[in-house]
Amino acid sequence: MRMYDLIQKKKQGASLSKEEISWMVKEYTLGAIPDYQMSAMMMAVCFQGMDEAETLQLTLSMRDSGDVLDLSSISGIKVDKHSTGGVGDKTSLVLAPMVAALGIPVAKMSGRGLGHTGGTIDKLECFPGFTTSLSQEQFIENVNRIKLSIMGQTANLAPADKKLYALRDVTATVNQMSLIASSIMSKKLAAGSDAIVLDVKTGNGAFMQEESDAFALAREMVRIGNGAGKRTVAVVTDMDQPLGCAVGNALEVKEAILSLNGQGPSDFMEVVYALGEQMVLLGGKARTQQEARALLSDAVKSGAALKKLAEFVEAQGGDGSYVYHPELLPTASHILEVKSSEEGFVTRILAEEIGLASLILGGGRSTKDSEIDLSVGVLLKKKRGCQVAYGDTLATIYANNRNQALEAYGKIVNAYEIGEAPPEASMIKGILTTP
Amino acid sequence: MRMYDLIQKKKQGASLSKEEISWMVKEYTLGAIPDYQMSAMMMAVCFQGMDEAETLQLTLSMRDSGDVLDLSSISGIKVDKHSTGGVGDKTSLVLAPMVAALGIPVAKMSGRGLGHTGGTIDKLECFPGFTTSLSQEQFIENVNRIKLSIMGQTANLAPADKKLYALRDVTATVNQMSLIASSIMSKKLAAGSDAIVLDVKTGNGAFMQEESDAFALAREMVRIGNGAGKRTVAVVTDMDQPLGCAVGNALEVKEAILSLNGQGPSDFMEVVYALGEQMVLLGGKARTQQEARALLSDAVKSGAALKKLAEFVEAQGGDGSYVYHPELLPTASHILEVKSSEEGFVTRILAEEIGLASLILGGGRSTKDSEIDLSVGVLLKKKRGCQVAYGDTLATIYANNRNQALEAYGKIVNAYEIGEAPPEASMIKGILTTP
Repeated sequence: MRMYDLIQKKKQGASLSKEEISWMVKEYTLGAIPDYQMSAMMMAVCFQGMDEAETLQLTLSMRDSGDVLDLSSISGIKVDKHSTGGVGDKTSLVLAPMVAALGIPVAKMSGRGLGHTGGTIDKLECFPGFTTSLSQEQFIENVNRIKLSIMGQTANLAPADKKLYALRDVTATVNQMSLIASSIMSKKLAAGSDAIVLDVKTGNGAFMQEESDAFALAREMVRIGNGAGKRTVAVVTDMDQPLGCAVGNALEVKEAILSLNGQGPSDFMEVVYALGEQMVLLGGKARTQQEARALLSDAVKSGAALKKLAEFVEAQGGDGSYVYHPELLPTASHILEVKSSEEGFVTRILAEEIGLASLILGGGRSTKDSEIDLSVGVLLKKKRGCQVAYGDTLATIYANNRNQALEAYGKIVNAYEIGEAPPEASMIKGILTTP
Repeated sequence: MRMYDLIQKKKQGASLSKEEISWMVKEYTLGAIPDYQMSAMMMAVCFQGMDEAETLQLTLSMRDSGDVLDLSSISGIKVDKHSTGGVGDKTSLVLAPMVAALGIPVAKMSGRGLGHTGGTIDKLECFPGFTTSLSQEQFIENVNRIKLSIMGQTANLAPADKKLYALRDVTATVNQMSLIASSIMSKKLAAGSDAIVLDVKTGNGAFMQEESDAFALAREMVRIGNGAGKRTVAVVTDMDQPLGCAVGNALEVKEAILSLNGQGPSDFMEVVYALGEQMVLLGGKARTQQEARALLSDAVKSGAALKKLAEFVEAQGGDGSYVYHPELLPTASHILEVKSSEEGFVTRILAEEIGLASLILGGGRSTKDSEIDLSVGVLLKKKRGCQVAYGDTLATIYANNRNQALEAYGKIVNAYEIGEAPPEASMIKGILTTP
């Protein structure tokens, strides 16, 4: 087989066979196919696309390029959740304990990643002592014992995807549906769960700004998951404003604790419940969405979910008492209120701008090695649909540096769009349960 | 400027500016833009194309990436000729002395290249002592004195094209009209002539098999040449059979000498005259094609062109007496006649197959370092339109090895297509004199 012929074939619009894709991924990972041939191939794929079989094979080949977690020693149906990423997305912090409280094993791998705020791991590190550096044995043992564990992503998870993504990132070939879907799914499949719930964001703050693109990506991923033998469901959710009120690490952890106390922001809880219902259904603990929702709601009301969070934090070396005393979590030294200079209704809050405000404050990573300030962030006081008068507080800035706070102020003012009437908007755009 | 942004721009179908293309070519030649970004760009160009301004700028930037020959100290209008390559193409060996005999300066750079037979330089080396390793001073001095010199391609001619072509060659991005045209023209423009005549081949033995593609390429190159301020004309000619009868180095030199003696094969001479007329017109020695043809024809009849060949060979260290005694040229030890097993009319002779026969016999280079056997080759006895009977000799093989001769035999038999009637075919498909 020659890479030249495969590039030519794809350039001409033909489909690559299973053997060809498998060979290509293997040789590329080994370094036997040079980057310059692979980038030409990726560009050809951007123009000619990949069919369902090709996309599935690419995903499987990338999955198999490294370690595939064996979670068979965990009893029960392991359900994983993945979000395509948004601003203020602290869903995992709330969902994982809720679902685990119902006896569904949650064995999750998580990354740090670049972004406006830290990843789930960074947020969890607000609990002093908490670590995700677990051995696979500890990880599995924890899930079997308390139904919930989160470990850091192993270095050898889908290395083909890592290498290919880095190449696509510098050759303008990221934005192709099959390539995006296979990249996400190769890692999810390597993480070893039995079923997967995908949260595909859409709106100004999402990778897929257009709803139709979000649905296309959702469909592609549900197809791949099911094609790979894992029941997979996608929920397409709104990201036309940040999710919930808190953006910033400790602020989000506090909001997560509030949510587990039954006081979560309504837009956020709507997404939590929609995803949770699917996880409970896939986990085999309920037969209908209503039943699933009742179980999840009970887990919150009874305090079982909050208790599960504390238990989980303790099991990974953290101080679980913070769960009951969120006032102990890191807080910033400066507080600055963002006032409205308009009146009307909030129609949109550009999530990207709020995210940038958090980044400016030091809450996120601009390079791999940046240090995160866990205490800073933004708390939104007015969300979409709210009526505002002149001088009303739109948001509160938590900063450790006055200049950064002023810079963030400008971003937040820019983020708010005020109109004459409250917009019609729904948090849940749709649910895809079959390919 | 970032290469990423340029790739993205081209991917989306926009045109790159002059500054962007110039920057890109410069940085790529320096090694500051990596191959993997350039190959992605080349693939995007294959899908989105380049407009006239982009194609011209790419050509000029590649031209300027290395040495540009300064021929201003040669008096008269310097006219260059370039062929896109075919089998049996010994046109330069005949045309250059014919045109030079009329007082038009021919200052030509030539390469060896890979192929079924050697390049023009290899063929000229059939004359013992002949060399193209001239200093620029000698080269210019020779042209001023005898109107004709051919030197080997300098190492630093359009290095950007060299690097880019090598990349395209392994990433399936060769076959794009603007890229092909700019690659050819960047080298021609760097070679410093005042005017250029292009011989664009079409047919089964040509790079552009389809006539419409050949015309498109011709148009593109004429546009570039004129855009770069050089009068440029393209003649689209037939390559549905080898050109002339001889394929192989010494055999072609003999045929060239025969042609200068007025005994050239008619298909070959038709192409020689068509190209020659344009050279004479561009060289300002005639006002009409008829006038130009008469001058060229006289140069042959009078023996001036043959004498010019001898003079030229001598001026570059070769033994000019061979021109008058072609029987001294290298000859092969084995002769094998290829007989017809069919009857009818020759409708096509697959040039590629005849070329391969020559390569098998040792007449060409399969790798850069192959040694060429100058004596071997194929002499076609029946050309397109000829009537053949069972047992007629179609061609004669000149070999130095019996097994190679037998292998070549099979290729030649395969090359001949015999039909019931002579085909209608013309050697000159069209002439493009304006962009």
